Amino acid sequence: MHDCVWSCTVNSAQTWTVGVTGATGYAGGEVCRLLAGHPQLQLAGVHAHSSAGRRLGELQPHLTPYADLVVGGSDAAELAGYDVVVLALPHGESAAIAAQLPADTLVIDCGADHRLDDPAAWARWYGGEHAGSWPYGLPELPGQREKLSGARRIAVPGCYPTSVTLAMAPALAAGLVNPDVVVVAASGTSGAGKSAKTHLLGSEVMGSASAYGVGGVHRHTPEMVQNLSQAAGAPVSVSFTPTLVPMSRGILATCSAPLAPGIDAAAARAAYEEAYADEPFVQLLPEGQWPTTAAVLGANTVQVQLAVDPDAGRLVVVAAVDNLTKGTAGGALQCANLALGLPETTGLPLVGVAP
Amino acid sequence: MHDCVWSCTVNSAQTWTVGVTGATGYAGGEVCRLLAGHPQLQLAGVHAHSSAGRRLGELQPHLTPYADLVVGGSDAAELAGYDVVVLALPHGESAAIAAQLPADTLVIDCGADHRLDDPAAWARWYGGEHAGSWPYGLPELPGQREKLSGARRIAVPGCYPTSVTLAMAPALAAGLVNPDVVVVAASGTSGAGKSAKTHLLGSEVMGSASAYGVGGVHRHTPEMVQNLSQAAGAPVSVSFTPTLVPMSRGILATCSAPLAPGIDAAAARAAYEEAYADEPFVQLLPEGQWPTTAAVLGANTVQVQLAVDPDAGRLVVVAAVDNLTKGTAGGALQCANLALGLPETTGLPLVGVAP
Amino acid sequence: MHDCVWSCTVNSAQTWTVGVTGATGYAGGEVCRLLAGHPQLQLAGVHAHSSAGRRLGELQPHLTPYADLVVGGSDAAELAGYDVVVLALPHGESAAIAAQLPADTLVIDCGADHRLDDPAAWARWYGGEHAGSWPYGLPELPGQREKLSGARRIAVPGCYPTSVTLAMAPALAAGLVNPDVVVVAASGTSGAGKSAKTHLLGSEVMGSASAYGVGGVHRHTPEMVQNLSQAAGAPVSVSFTPTLVPMSRGILATCSAPLAPGIDAAAARAAYEEAYADEPFVQLLPEGQWPTTAAVLGANTVQVQLAVDPDAGRLVVVAAVDNLTKGTAGGALQCANLALGLPETTGLPLVGVAP
Amino acid sequence: MHDCVWSCTVNSAQTWTVGVTGATGYAGGEVCRLLAGHPQLQLAGVHAHSSAGRRLGELQPHLTPYADLVVGGSDAAELAGYDVVVLALPHGESAAIAAQLPADTLVIDCGADHRLDDPAAWARWYGGEHAGSWPYGLPELPGQREKLSGARRIAVPGCYPTSVTLAMAPALAAGLVNPDVVVVAASGTSGAGKSAKTHLLGSEVMGSASAYGVGGVHRHTPEMVQNLSQAAGAPVSVSFTPTLVPMSRGILATCSAPLAPGIDAAAARAAYEEAYADEPFVQLLPEGQWPTTAAVLGANTVQVQLAVDPDAGRLVVVAAVDNLTKGTAGGALQCANLALGLPETTGLPLVGVAP
Repeated sequence: MHDCVWSCTVNSAQTWTVGVTGATGYAGGEVCRLLAGHPQLQLAGVHAHSSAGRRLGELQPHLTPYADLVVGGSDAAELAGYDVVVLALPHGESAAIAAQLPADTLVIDCGADHRLDDPAAWARWYGGEHAGSWPYGLPELPGQREKLSGARRIAVPGCYPTSVTLAMAPALAAGLVNPDVVVVAASGTSGAGKSAKTHLLGSEVMGSASAYGVGGVHRHTPEMVQNLSQAAGAPVSVSFTPTLVPMSRGILATCSAPLAPGIDAAAARAAYEEAYADEPFVQLLPEGQWPTTAAVLGANTVQVQLAVDPDAGRLVVVAAVDNLTKGTAGGALQCANLALGLPETTGLPLVGVAP
Repeated sequence: MHDCVWSCTVNSAQTWTVGVTGATGYAGGEVCRLLAGHPQLQLAGVHAHSSAGRRLGELQPHLTPYADLVVGGSDAAELAGYDVVVLALPHGESAAIAAQLPADTLVIDCGADHRLDDPAAWARWYGGEHAGSWPYGLPELPGQREKLSGARRIAVPGCYPTSVTLAMAPALAAGLVNPDVVVVAASGTSGAGKSAKTHLLGSEVMGSASAYGVGGVHRHTPEMVQNLSQAAGAPVSVSFTPTLVPMSRGILATCSAPLAPGIDAAAARAAYEEAYADEPFVQLLPEGQWPTTAAVLGANTVQVQLAVDPDAGRLVVVAAVDNLTKGTAGGALQCANLALGLPETTGLPLVGVAP
Repeated sequence: MHDCVWSCTVNSAQTWTVGVTGATGYAGGEVCRLLAGHPQLQLAGVHAHSSAGRRLGELQPHLTPYADLVVGGSDAAELAGYDVVVLALPHGESAAIAAQLPADTLVIDCGADHRLDDPAAWARWYGGEHAGSWPYGLPELPGQREKLSGARRIAVPGCYPTSVTLAMAPALAAGLVNPDVVVVAASGTSGAGKSAKTHLLGSEVMGSASAYGVGGVHRHTPEMVQNLSQAAGAPVSVSFTPTLVPMSRGILATCSAPLAPGIDAAAARAAYEEAYADEPFVQLLPEGQWPTTAAVLGANTVQVQLAVDPDAGRLVVVAAVDNLTKGTAGGALQCANLALGLPETTGLPLVGVAP
Repeated sequence: MHDCVWSCTVNSAQTWTVGVTGATGYAGGEVCRLLAGHPQLQLAGVHAHSSAGRRLGELQPHLTPYADLVVGGSDAAELAGYDVVVLALPHGESAAIAAQLPADTLVIDCGADHRLDDPAAWARWYGGEHAGSWPYGLPELPGQREKLSGARRIAVPGCYPTSVTLAMAPALAAGLVNPDVVVVAASGTSGAGKSAKTHLLGSEVMGSASAYGVGGVHRHTPEMVQNLSQAAGAPVSVSFTPTLVPMSRGILATCSAPLAPGIDAAAARAAYEEAYADEPFVQLLPEGQWPTTAAVLGANTVQVQLAVDPDAGRLVVVAAVDNLTKGTAGGALQCANLALGLPETTGLPLVGVAP
């Protein structure tokens, strides 16, 4: 009845070696976790700045099959020799390393260094000189899948932009709304990374919701503007407020914009159904069912639902993703599949770990 | 240096007896908890529909001093004889009981039955005939404190409207924004009450954020519209999306609206500073510090902060409240203080229980 | 370097159909989740008592690939025709259904009905007549793997007994300790199932730890006694206290017993290293590293660590499992692999979903 | 009917000034929170090592009434001049400061420096020379209340020893059990303090239970041994395993010991009822009701329950405390009340903040 979801393309004996740097962090660890389930990508080495020489099992105790790997350094020289290199480093650290890797190595950057097309936007939001943009790793954006096929440099989207873009791009592309988008997104704490900061302590975050980066100052904002403007074919403004809620993983993005004249619920739904009819990782929920982050935990899926509010004259769209999976590491491997000519879904989980 | 916060007004020997119905639920339990710290209001009896005859300690094990109280029934006859009656019942159950209580009893309704001024709004959102509106228990609304002084019937606001109104009323009153408000609020699960429903199980809510009541269908929406329109002196539209996040208590409301022409950050802040200069329970945070629900857990305080987003042209205001304390039971006792001629802060905690 | 963990045994074209009843609950849902990653077991139908006729996606939104399956009834007649039937039903409901299924169907019971060998123990702890015991699905117990090979009826252990048995069996088998075991285990709430009970509400369990079933009255106690006595070759007493802590999944079992004369830390560790040298799912951690339930979340692995307390004269062993995975559904599929002649690890995750 | 729980002893106009050092941490913050509700102890100054010069509101945003206090340094000279000094510092930092404070200042040490009577125990568990023991701040220990009355130096117990001692002392004092105690305690993360460590990050602790300090190596062990040996009048051994569970506050201590000959459930219960009949902060629950940490969150109460397991031949006692309240700061103020001649319960909350 149902085929095996993790089906291995058995005729293809080809495998690729993968090196992951930043493997001791949350994003890098998630790349390793997903590689354990990928039939043709083989984790061949883990690297990190500060933990070189330690057993991975000590730092990432959930990565049982890789527990005895010893963490290597993160210089470009130590990353040469892999077929695929995944960079899961803090923003600003990827570009210099990537520049030294062979041109035919598939390099996938989970950081921000190559996401923005506009050098002025880079300068404003991150500072310094821009390293140039790479093909943007969101295959669900119209026209994007083709750019990723066969690519050897890929910029993985930020976790917030993944959720917000998938929530709102169809509305903007179809002209359902005016281009003034308001987003409030609730994120789990892993989005803030594994660095030991007081405000991220369990004692601080459990039982508490908080806002941060309010007023349009979060660095993911220009990435949303870029994506949604591309979808709309015209400039889009985004008011983005991120909030932190007491869970490790997950983003719930609540997005809205003023309805364009003449748009009703049926028209809105039709546009989303058309946009996502063939997307393997986007699940437009049946009417009346709303996304929960638990349902996508650990999966490469996105749940989307929409509603029209006639009183307020707005379209409201909610998307749920796992910030580490579809929001980062899963999206990265989805792009790797495309770049390497594999079926796009190879080795990627469609089932969330719930409850 | 600092005076005792829980100062007992010792000259005033007067005390009032209080009966609480719905005392086995979350809102009613919080009323009892706060009464334990109130020097002049004495919990004299607890009542509930379905648990009559049981020890309170069995149902509310945290209410140690009241553990041996036996739950009484919830007919109006059983509530007569108290100086103050607090109704913490499901929407629609208060009106009939209240109608049978003596006119000089102070009756405080934590439910929705008497909040809406407009019978048509009641009919649309709750159905049936409206029981009529009572003085609305949000003293921080301009002009409202006077209406509560000496009142004998008070309608306690909903938890979401409390947070949203306190966040946005100053902006609308001062003309900082156009009257198109967008709200996304994250709530702890106690807002959904103590009824055993599958989607509220710990296994479902821990580790998960979810949206519900999307598209302008949540019943607290007309209450926000009423309050904010009153503040603005003109009709206001509210796009409201509630979300559920993994914590027991707390609401974090993220609100925004388009900036009116010529308004900048300084003007916005000045308006809020003026609005809340003398409010004992509203804490406008210093610039750069953002509200967290942990900071107000169990306290009758509201934390507010604002920012101007010049790119998106919006004012963003975030408010944090404890839905059970300032959002319900604390707000109720604050109003009781006003109604009985006590200092407004009597017996109400200003300190949150953190971490 | 590392082979694909989810390796598909590609030569073997054989697949088996699986029907799961109780598929709308937590244990049944986890069976479905794991089947999505199994290359040779195919989920062919889902069944349940009370939700027959509804879409699975509505009830288990994380099971994306199976969202459109319609839930069937749970009579034995509706379960006939599958190669494998997994019964994930409340205790006492399996036996009658199992008795009507064909003898050559592989029937795996996740409930308690066929776990206890002693009819008197069944009568005391569950009441009524015993349906008889089946091969006990814990392959790591000495001699047990052979009994499961080719079996067509398998009783999956309880989640607590899985963790406690794997923690203490080596100590008792090797004579490290006297047979008086004390266990305190912390469990996530999913162990209590998906039924809507007030004390399992998120508002109740978040931020709270509690004990239940204290004093030797939990029904998993006789199962632990049975397993550990089998390991010891002599009667063992178990003092078992379960506690509920604020997480959805996971059991952390802290077990101890008085050291036998002459046993020191080195001897103890040697016994565990020998016992678990070849066990694919048991990870005896390096010295100094202690189990966390996060590291095994969603995985079929068990983390074990031990210490000798010379002052108190006790061996302390801690084990972490995911109650739904290795503790129920993963253990079930591990046994199915053995019963069907597949490699024992086929399709089972070794990597936890952390953070 | 019920009197005001927070009754102010109005005739007594006397107040005492209190200085708190370590006020930016969790224990010190809790002292401040409770002082806000104490009618006769007035928080007059806050101090800390590393945050001197900053506003308290920035560091402890829940302490609203004290937000504008500026943190002072933590030298003894800066602490002179208060009537009462509370030291909420890391272990080993109190003794030197305390030695320089006036003899008639009431000095309350929340750290370990003066808890242990035996210098050899100090040397073994903490290292270095012992500063000498002070009256031990657990009034519920037989004979202890008298030692605290009028004292000017008090050593507040550790959070684990508070819960374990209150759980087991009656059993040992009454000879209900043999002196071999096994304890497994689940603690919230605030017990580990506010220091930024990776393993205490929210992402790590949410959804996870873990053990630490296993095998009798936790520093609270000798304190339990000291207390329980005092209760028993003979040496007691304690096997203690602490575990970390996903909540900010609370300890659930599950304790057991072999039943002495001839002891049954009735005898055990009678001993506990007698021991705790007049203790204002110890709540021996009615039979069948078990402690939850939520019920004591923020309160100075301890919930205790016991059961006899005839099969295993053990008495099992479970106690729940808030590690920051009764386990530290509340216990400290309870002792301050005794030392200053105030009613022991003055200003201390009896009601937990639940749900």
